[in-house]
Amino acid sequence: MVAGNSHFGNIKDLVMRCVILNISEWEAFKESFTLIKVPAKKILLKKGQVAHHLYFVNHGILRLYYINSRGEDITAFFFKEKLFAGSYESFILQKPSLQQIEALEDTELLSISFDKLQELYKEIPKINILTRVITEQRFITGQEIFSSFILKTAEERYVLFSEKHPDLLLRVPLQYVASFLGMTAVSLSRIRRRLIKSSLIS
Amino acid sequence: MVAGNSHFGNIKDLVMRCVILNISEWEAFKESFTLIKVPAKKILLKKGQVAHHLYFVNHGILRLYYINSRGEDITAFFFKEKLFAGSYESFILQKPSLQQIEALEDTELLSISFDKLQELYKEIPKINILTRVITEQRFITGQEIFSSFILKTAEERYVLFSEKHPDLLLRVPLQYVASFLGMTAVSLSRIRRRLIKSSLIS
Repeated sequence: MVAGNSHFGNIKDLVMRCVILNISEWEAFKESFTLIKVPAKKILLKKGQVAHHLYFVNHGILRLYYINSRGEDITAFFFKEKLFAGSYESFILQKPSLQQIEALEDTELLSISFDKLQELYKEIPKINILTRVITEQRFITGQEIFSSFILKTAEERYVLFSEKHPDLLLRVPLQYVASFLGMTAVSLSRIRRRLIKSSLIS
Repeated sequence: MVAGNSHFGNIKDLVMRCVILNISEWEAFKESFTLIKVPAKKILLKKGQVAHHLYFVNHGILRLYYINSRGEDITAFFFKEKLFAGSYESFILQKPSLQQIEALEDTELLSISFDKLQELYKEIPKINILTRVITEQRFITGQEIFSSFILKTAEERYVLFSEKHPDLLLRVPLQYVASFLGMTAVSLSRIRRRLIKSSLIS
């Protein structure tokens, strides 16, 4: 689907914070993206497939998750509005993904292919600044999750999540939040009841 | 300490795989680094300090680790020869580190400060390509560790580590390898004995 100017507001804010593009560079950047709309529950990437695309979320939520050898579903990340999303390791290396991606809501995305991105790097080398910053942010987010598993209790992780992402608690099924926080849905419910009782959260 | 050409062999290989620098750009890049030698057991960064420097390991090993609220020491990563090393989240954001860094051997490093790196970005924008690639590699390595905790057993993690880093098993105290793999030193010894008995490793 061809994306109009109205679909590029959020990505433009992000790009312009990282790098100064002139009009023709911005046009070339825009034209590298395709607008796609995916209905809730649609699986965009299955494990074992190569992630050929990177997405920018205009509306909706993508969930990145693992299916382990026991068939259990473990959420790795929620990508909501204004974030670049994807199985980034698979995308960078162009190798089969360990993770899956699904839409949790009707979702509108701007999609860029791996090949298009490599063309952009050649055409507009400054795009390396943008992807450096985006990759730094993905690294930092990954580190924060890893550190929270080492340094915090399950309850502390939940309190932090509810402070940082109160919207996600309303938009995402609780069992996905539970596995993202490293606990069962039953443990999460118990923690929520305890916190509500002690008025720590509403 | 001023670094001579002989100290730049490994970093030059890495840089030149990512980006083509002319002679004056390479000289400017080199001059941004300082050679430092740190003795084994020296702590280069304490938690709560801001990581003002990023290191390239010429010889030796740096260990990145957490101290949790119970005073337990948990290894996050080993940086050996030819790797950029540091508390990268603290370095990028210039905020206090959650982690500590120590030298496990007498270690020789090339060190660049955060401010010098920002100057390099202005002087030689192509350096963004280099740091994009390095950040992608750090992200991928972090993801591999995270995925292995979700998808593999402790024994599988140990087998993978011993295949990928046989040198580290000889150079690093086993209790550090144990915490890196998410187990106690006692569990690691038990796994090693079982694997040796079944001749899966030597």
